[in-house]
Amino acid sequence: MNIPMPREQLERVVRQVVRQRFAERLMAGEPQLSAAYGPNLVVNISARHMHIRQDDLERLFGAGAELTVYRWLYQPGEFAAEQTVTVFGPRRRAIENVRILGPARQFTQLEISFTDAVALGIDVPCRPSGKIEGTPGCLVVGPKGSIQMEQGVIRAERHVHMSPSDADGYGFEDGQYVKVGVESDCAATFERVLCRVDPKFLLEVHVDTDEGNACNLVGATSVELSA
Amino acid sequence: MNIPMPREQLERVVRQVVRQRFAERLMAGEPQLSAAYGPNLVVNISARHMHIRQDDLERLFGAGAELTVYRWLYQPGEFAAEQTVTVFGPRRRAIENVRILGPARQFTQLEISFTDAVALGIDVPCRPSGKIEGTPGCLVVGPKGSIQMEQGVIRAERHVHMSPSDADGYGFEDGQYVKVGVESDCAATFERVLCRVDPKFLLEVHVDTDEGNACNLVGATSVELSA
Repeated sequence: MNIPMPREQLERVVRQVVRQRFAERLMAGEPQLSAAYGPNLVVNISARHMHIRQDDLERLFGAGAELTVYRWLYQPGEFAAEQTVTVFGPRRRAIENVRILGPARQFTQLEISFTDAVALGIDVPCRPSGKIEGTPGCLVVGPKGSIQMEQGVIRAERHVHMSPSDADGYGFEDGQYVKVGVESDCAATFERVLCRVDPKFLLEVHVDTDEGNACNLVGATSVELSA
Repeated sequence: MNIPMPREQLERVVRQVVRQRFAERLMAGEPQLSAAYGPNLVVNISARHMHIRQDDLERLFGAGAELTVYRWLYQPGEFAAEQTVTVFGPRRRAIENVRILGPARQFTQLEISFTDAVALGIDVPCRPSGKIEGTPGCLVVGPKGSIQMEQGVIRAERHVHMSPSDADGYGFEDGQYVKVGVESDCAATFERVLCRVDPKFLLEVHVDTDEGNACNLVGATSVELSA
């Protein structure tokens, strides 16, 4: 006899599978978790990660070190590197397994959530990537050495990458703030989402783990981008 | 000579103080962090906490144990108890220092954030307090014993407590879903906020730490409740 599983129990099993996978990927230092809604709009949760200058990379991983591809990201040419570091806040609280994103950049920057900032004891401002003037630093430890970042620890301001034709389609401009609405059992609208327009960008929203968790993005049924 | 501090630096110092206090209170297992906006509307972040039946309390803290007041909460008669527990998810991951809220209730319930759920490895559904049918359980350890909860681990659905006269003022009804808008550098609107109307309630919104962190509630400049 085939006794049907009660709907609630079934839903729980499905959620269990989705969330376990999510949890495992987070624990493995997976830098991005995808959710695609419709043919074009993709929303990714950016887990904590680091961007790095070549000289800092060599201080942490040894002379001549290069970033190697762990997984390609959605934006063309961007990748999660095999290389990870441990970061320390004041009072020596640490977060291990922070993944570096490649390729190497002109600045070294650590992007963490507010939850991470509380855990580390770092006062983290919300900034667009690259706007690191006056931000706090922290100690970063790699297998071959450590660096004391003087600045560059930020909570990344939520943003949406898009091409000029996507921007035309939505009627948005580079630098404009737009909204992202997430439909779920914990529905929310993120009000200040920075538009970043560049011919090489694919249409993709980036939120951090706090934001993804707050609106249950992993369990979301739809997402909308609006002015 | 009195050299004025640059505005950015000043703001950082203020944020540092606010956030350090926030972090210290979270680390101390403080169950609620307040932010008042205007004469009436209060928004509190509910950190992870537990409600408990008297018999479970005695299993954890010994025969005849009673909850004692650590700090009174905003809702009349409710308090954070001096008693805290350690909770374990599958694979024995633990969160220590989870505070019990008093008085004792008719059901034992653990309220955690999605971030906590990922850390513990528990699949947590979003539920109004008390609706724990079919939810997962977990192991809870106290100083004198432990209990295996069969159910009752939830992510509390965001909600707003209000009196009938507050409800009249807003035009809301008990059980209705309303919106809470938070103005900050990470502004967000929470779309599904459950109205709970009772003559003994004071006007107070409860969000969890993920939601508070997602919208930088601690640094918010205003909050608005709307239909």
